[in-house]
Amino acid sequence: SKTHSLLILPGDGIGPEIMAQARRIIDWLADNRGLEFDISEDLVGGCAYDAHGVPLADETLAKAREVDAVLLGAVGGPKWTGVDYDRRPEAGLLKIRKELELFANLRPAMCFEPLVDASSLKPELVSGLDIMIVRELVGGIYFGEPRGIETLPSGERRGVNTQVYTTSEIHRIAHVAFDLAGKRRGKVTSAEKCNVMESGLLWREEVEVVSKDYPNVELEHMLADNCGMQLVRAPKQFDVIVTDNLFGDLLSDVAAMLTGSLGMLPSASLGVKGGGAMYEPVHGSAPDIAGQGIANPIATILSLAMALRYTFELGEEADLVENAVNAVLEGGMRTADIMQPGKAKVSTSVMGDAILREM
Amino acid sequence: SKTHSLLILPGDGIGPEIMAQARRIIDWLADNRGLEFDISEDLVGGCAYDAHGVPLADETLAKAREVDAVLLGAVGGPKWTGVDYDRRPEAGLLKIRKELELFANLRPAMCFEPLVDASSLKPELVSGLDIMIVRELVGGIYFGEPRGIETLPSGERRGVNTQVYTTSEIHRIAHVAFDLAGKRRGKVTSAEKCNVMESGLLWREEVEVVSKDYPNVELEHMLADNCGMQLVRAPKQFDVIVTDNLFGDLLSDVAAMLTGSLGMLPSASLGVKGGGAMYEPVHGSAPDIAGQGIANPIATILSLAMALRYTFELGEEADLVENAVNAVLEGGMRTADIMQPGKAKVSTSVMGDAILREM
Ligand SMILES: CC(C)[C@H](C(=O)O)[C@@H](O)C(=O)O
Ligand SMILES: CC(C)[C@H](C(=O)O)[C@@H](O)C(=O)O
Repeated sequence: SKTHSLLILPGDGIGPEIMAQARRIIDWLADNRGLEFDISEDLVGGCAYDAHGVPLADETLAKAREVDAVLLGAVGGPKWTGVDYDRRPEAGLLKIRKELELFANLRPAMCFEPLVDASSLKPELVSGLDIMIVRELVGGIYFGEPRGIETLPSGERRGVNTQVYTTSEIHRIAHVAFDLAGKRRGKVTSAEKCNVMESGLLWREEVEVVSKDYPNVELEHMLADNCGMQLVRAPKQFDVIVTDNLFGDLLSDVAAMLTGSLGMLPSASLGVKGGGAMYEPVHGSAPDIAGQGIANPIATILSLAMALRYTFELGEEADLVENAVNAVLEGGMRTADIMQPGKAKVSTSVMGDAILREM
Repeated sequence: SKTHSLLILPGDGIGPEIMAQARRIIDWLADNRGLEFDISEDLVGGCAYDAHGVPLADETLAKAREVDAVLLGAVGGPKWTGVDYDRRPEAGLLKIRKELELFANLRPAMCFEPLVDASSLKPELVSGLDIMIVRELVGGIYFGEPRGIETLPSGERRGVNTQVYTTSEIHRIAHVAFDLAGKRRGKVTSAEKCNVMESGLLWREEVEVVSKDYPNVELEHMLADNCGMQLVRAPKQFDVIVTDNLFGDLLSDVAAMLTGSLGMLPSASLGVKGGGAMYEPVHGSAPDIAGQGIANPIATILSLAMALRYTFELGEEADLVENAVNAVLEGGMRTADIMQPGKAKVSTSVMGDAILREM
């Protein structure tokens, strides 16, 4: 049987706590499903900075390149606010994305039925919600040059960042979106600000070009500000949303929060065929509750399930994990972030226990 | 008595219909309150392009510079999709903002009590909501150079836009935010992506500098993606949000939609002391319902009220208009966009009649 190699990067804040539960699931799968995993664990983000003075050591990056997939917790926290810009925790995460060329960030925003009431939106607006946000992840203003802060002769400072996209960068992310939509409800919404930004106009025109290859998928263009509005007004109008790195950051967070299921949402960052992949929860490092054992491990466990399905091609095992999560929720267990009246509030590790028991 | 000069630019789509109602209010104030208005009207956006081949004629810009205030409807529509980039309808609006240096865009996101149920959020989350978004309006990626689309030797195209901010641009908008917060609930939230963009880091640091002048106002920094989330999760945590041009575009639209009162929200764009000002509804030109006489004129009428208050220093008349709007809503009249069960659905002009009658 094949060995599945996985690099685990728990990161900062609640990262280590939630990752410990995902780790238990992996061990269970190895013991009970005859699977062979080659697991390594390393530092990324603030903890890597504390240990090595950089948020991603060269050896860690080398390992990330070698493995089949990376499973990441979360990075960052107030502790590292004063750190040099190029050594801040987030720089470690951005470096993995860029160096592994993980250009396609898939962020499902779905509402877990038992959690409908946890949404700030009216239940009928989010019940059954299932949007896939396809965010370009290695281009745009996140990586464009020139960038930086300079001091002008007048003594004023000037901060610059550059949004850049090329035809091929837009084409490859558009293909991911149309391929996915073809397997879903057949609709792609492309979001940009073509009325203000030429890079947005290029985005729109090149997405249009790619759409010609997909006669069975409907393409809709929407201004990013309107897309934000429409997500709040009537989120179920969307199937797949494709957008750039910066708008994707914001719109996917808004969409995730709409669902009321933020602590539940996994994501995948995929590169070119045969290249690596990274899986991580949509939520952040939540430094305010770190170390208390109360964080929700489900988004990380479902990120592992995505890795099982997409990288390791272990669809059956992915189902097993996802079904166990659903069963535990149905059974009424909740971590603090998704607690509802009449349910049982449990800790991070008790949630892990329960999911393992269901499996 | 002083003459108040106002340039009216109805624009495209529903612009002319809603502006006609604001115009009636002005006439009423002239007739009944002994005020002298010098009103001119002109074209902007797509209709200006149709007439002159440009979305803002030089003479219109010259007039905008001369008057005390501009009242604008809305611009744009699918009719002008194919128009050259620098002649698209939006370019007319952006040119007024830039040429008049209207750097401070004030966008109140408030929930009108009779419309609480129109929000997609649960009523308890939006009842009493009153946020002021202070958006920088003449800098950032909207205007930064270099910009454009070029064709590379490989035949690929490349689209570029540049985000630029300087110390003084950040200081002046921060002062507006802190001044406003001082008269409100004393809290400023500054939103940027300092973990990814150096221009965001500069923003954060310079807002921090300005905050030292306002010991009685609390300053909180928030990443823009998290700000989008928090707006959805618990909007009442905010008082004043200060942010850049692009994030302000998106976050103010999300905030406006949260209130359920989108068709009700006015905005003001203010420049340097003694300079001009522009007032306009937050909503767009709604080409899908243009010409049907069903659009909601209230956001435009309340924009006029803001002009009365801030530019003409006619606070009493502003109160009169705002109170009339409230009374009409209390009375149960609704245009289609804010229609609720058991209320009376009325046209644009009947809504105008009712507000005039209350006055
Ligand atoms: C941590 C940060 C650099 C990151 C981003 O902005 O991409 C995060 O917000 C995300 O969405 O994954
Ligand atoms: C019409 C468009 C250029 C404009 C903007 O992007 O600023 C609009 O969305 C707004 O928010 O006023």
